[in-house]
Amino acid sequence: MTISGKLLIAGEWQEGDAGSFQAVNPATGQPIATQHTKASEQQVSVAAELAGEAFAGYRNTSLKARATFLHACADHIMQLGDELLDCMQQETGYPRGRCEGERARTVGQLRMQADYIVSGDYLDPRIDSALPQRQPIPRPDLRYLNQAIGVVAVFAVSNFPLAYSSAGGDTASALAAGCPVIVKGHPSHPGTGELVVQALQRAARECDMPTGVISYIQGDDNIAGAALINAPQVKAIGFTGSIKGGTSIAKMAAVRPEPIPVFAEMGSINPVVLLPHALAESATDIAAGFVGALTLGTGQFCVNPGLIVALKSPHLDTFVEAVSAQLNGAGAGVMLNQRICQNYQQGVEQFTQYSGVAVAANGEPVAQTEGFYAQTALFRTQASYFLANPQLHEEVFGPASLLVECETVAQIQQVLLSLPGQLTGTVHGAKDELEEHSALLDLLSVKVGRMVINGFPTGVEVCPAMVHGGPFPASTDSRFTAVGTAAIHRWIRPVCYQNFPQTLLPEALKDANPLGLLRTVNGIKTLDPIV
Amino acid sequence: MTISGKLLIAGEWQEGDAGSFQAVNPATGQPIATQHTKASEQQVSVAAELAGEAFAGYRNTSLKARATFLHACADHIMQLGDELLDCMQQETGYPRGRCEGERARTVGQLRMQADYIVSGDYLDPRIDSALPQRQPIPRPDLRYLNQAIGVVAVFAVSNFPLAYSSAGGDTASALAAGCPVIVKGHPSHPGTGELVVQALQRAARECDMPTGVISYIQGDDNIAGAALINAPQVKAIGFTGSIKGGTSIAKMAAVRPEPIPVFAEMGSINPVVLLPHALAESATDIAAGFVGALTLGTGQFCVNPGLIVALKSPHLDTFVEAVSAQLNGAGAGVMLNQRICQNYQQGVEQFTQYSGVAVAANGEPVAQTEGFYAQTALFRTQASYFLANPQLHEEVFGPASLLVECETVAQIQQVLLSLPGQLTGTVHGAKDELEEHSALLDLLSVKVGRMVINGFPTGVEVCPAMVHGGPFPASTDSRFTAVGTAAIHRWIRPVCYQNFPQTLLPEALKDANPLGLLRTVNGIKTLDPIV
Repeated sequence: MTISGKLLIAGEWQEGDAGSFQAVNPATGQPIATQHTKASEQQVSVAAELAGEAFAGYRNTSLKARATFLHACADHIMQLGDELLDCMQQETGYPRGRCEGERARTVGQLRMQADYIVSGDYLDPRIDSALPQRQPIPRPDLRYLNQAIGVVAVFAVSNFPLAYSSAGGDTASALAAGCPVIVKGHPSHPGTGELVVQALQRAARECDMPTGVISYIQGDDNIAGAALINAPQVKAIGFTGSIKGGTSIAKMAAVRPEPIPVFAEMGSINPVVLLPHALAESATDIAAGFVGALTLGTGQFCVNPGLIVALKSPHLDTFVEAVSAQLNGAGAGVMLNQRICQNYQQGVEQFTQYSGVAVAANGEPVAQTEGFYAQTALFRTQASYFLANPQLHEEVFGPASLLVECETVAQIQQVLLSLPGQLTGTVHGAKDELEEHSALLDLLSVKVGRMVINGFPTGVEVCPAMVHGGPFPASTDSRFTAVGTAAIHRWIRPVCYQNFPQTLLPEALKDANPLGLLRTVNGIKTLDPIV
Repeated sequence: MTISGKLLIAGEWQEGDAGSFQAVNPATGQPIATQHTKASEQQVSVAAELAGEAFAGYRNTSLKARATFLHACADHIMQLGDELLDCMQQETGYPRGRCEGERARTVGQLRMQADYIVSGDYLDPRIDSALPQRQPIPRPDLRYLNQAIGVVAVFAVSNFPLAYSSAGGDTASALAAGCPVIVKGHPSHPGTGELVVQALQRAARECDMPTGVISYIQGDDNIAGAALINAPQVKAIGFTGSIKGGTSIAKMAAVRPEPIPVFAEMGSINPVVLLPHALAESATDIAAGFVGALTLGTGQFCVNPGLIVALKSPHLDTFVEAVSAQLNGAGAGVMLNQRICQNYQQGVEQFTQYSGVAVAANGEPVAQTEGFYAQTALFRTQASYFLANPQLHEEVFGPASLLVECETVAQIQQVLLSLPGQLTGTVHGAKDELEEHSALLDLLSVKVGRMVINGFPTGVEVCPAMVHGGPFPASTDSRFTAVGTAAIHRWIRPVCYQNFPQTLLPEALKDANPLGLLRTVNGIKTLDPIV
């Protein structure tokens, strides 16, 4: 196994026709040797065509066959061993522990989706029996089943080279649903992306899945990506990244001859409200939790806490002092690439140019002379100033956060109301004040995808109850989540079978219930066969 | 109760500021007396603002309270009695039986959604318990619940003044979900629309629902509609109508500062495949069923069978002769308005201008000298000609259909493959040939929302297993249905509650399971409380 710099198109690893690029080691700023070739529009078309052909076979594979395939994907990723971890470390600057943790999450996601589809829950099978005697007109036999939407394009993301990229949550849920996937790799970690796709291809061969069930294209410009968005065989898109990137893809998809759905998980500043009793009780502990969440992965998480909202009080000052003390000696962290690092520095500089914004705490300044590093920063402003300057509501991707000091709880509400949609919203409060100010939670519930009490939003658990998404611009479609078992709903659509003979029905809808699924039969949930 | 020509804005019936218009009786072509006033952009803004305020209260009403409200809506619609039926007949030209039937369907839909939400099924409650001892990091307590998306704008449709308009399927499912609704009435039946909204308002008052839970605006141009699409409080849109109208709304919604989801159910030609053994066995019966489906409601159904695809054979000729015989003496039907009637006549004339298209059968010519009437028509062409002329694939809304004669089953497949997405696809076949040609069904399953065997697609049953939607351009988002209990999914989004104390959780997520819902607890479906 080696990194070839090639693309997986039509089942074959081939060189891209549109030139090549090199990844950069962000810890040193130096290019990494491998030349990664770029897909031409023609090559993207060919990949899409074969993926479209693969759909015919792949969507009709059994739940068990797909589950076996997903487990094999996980196995082959693990078998990449140190080569994968070494490459990921070199391309991202992440510490080994993070790479191992993200790998564990990635294979965990694949295995979770595998186990989940076998339950048949996502198929939502429904049967309404014929009522031939009904007046004034008879009811036909009607049966409902979710099925795969078609080829899915997945855009890999900079900050999760495993968990949101080649075999990340989008790919895992799309493959689970029966959709072939074309991955557009991220130019920051092309080698990591390629190795994982090699693993997926080995799993596909081992499990006799159709050629074209997985494809990999690359490019460090928007040409291959645009061709992918416009390929007629592509029926849905998964994206994680910036608001600019996500909305641009969503707009392109909306004006295709056949518009297609886009699920883009985008920016968020993830407000954290600190209520007074909580601060009085544990300002220092909250500060420790906050600094941990702020600096994790050099702040390169979409659920990074970018906004603290609190009442003015001596306890709030204690919180700020504790943050300052904790950041004292906290070295600059490495960022993923030059563009992210520059954007972060610009964002931080912009904060300092507002007369009403002050620096409240800082990590150590950047000491490195090479590579892409960032200094942690907490800024401080007043609610009235924040409300008057909407540019302060925008995300600065990285280890920076803004503390907004409020005079009253009503002002906290105003601040929250002024924000656009968010991935998460957090409240720290003692039991009594949480109940007293439950209106804050009610307000957050229409703004965010996930609400957190007395914790921090970092750490997106992969489980059935997770919601990773939220009202725009947190995502392009708040009706779906990018993480958890429900993520599969992005790639499925219902089909109704009217008056089908038993032999022609999908297994999940046959009277005998051969798959043993929980089904809605004449409005009632049941495991029973129809006799 | 009288028809006032007013609008329901901010809980008050008021005159529109943007002029007025009159509806037209399509059976006579004469205007109906009432002056219906048109909403100004300013009035739409006010309506949206109050609907936004109503959302705060309405989304937190209990399932039972909303169910009671929906039943009251149904009751009050029934209490409109003959006034509603008279008005609807006058505005649509529909026979009394159709008006009564559509009213029954409409109140049935409201009652179905009422009963459905009480089951809590659509909430999809999920609980993943905390795992404080888990290594390497503990799992927090996570709980998932679907909730209302916000204010929904519903565009009423010409051909279903009750079932898809003021209190139609979109409104019923949005109100059921906890979303206030702003109805943009259809100018073809403004009186019918107003009467129904009067009934909804009475129900809202009776049930102490917030003012602004229902609003009604009108206009015979696009001004009020455009203002509604762009109102910031509106978070989702339901539309039924033409491809042009639906895609235009979807594009407007996609470029809002906050893009919002649009579910537009649009055009379809609903291919019907006739296999040879079925024709040999029962060409005359199939012809009778076809003529019934084609002429029902003067063909003004989105599931009207606009395309017949069959192998050349003497039995196919028998079918055509039987259709011709049945249409002989079938009088011209009244259409809903002048525009629809003119578009139909143009569509039919275009068919006759193709050298490769012949008239196969006709109903009686239009004898009326006033009003808007249409002659039924079946055209005939060869598959090769059909494939070479994609304009023939477009919907002609009304009682016209095109028979495409194929040389081989492979050519039938080609014809189906050439079609864009459809609401429905139908196959008539004897048991043996259905199994032999099951590839046709597999092909249809990726093209349509509903497949019908040995029947016709007209008659959209309102039940849990119905799918009314399909790949573009049948709808703008094939992942949802406009009809059936699943229609509510268009208006809900999941929210995750992390580490919430019991007292602050929604009832549906409390450990004790006070609502007795089926929930997914740690991945397992259960009715049990958590102890």
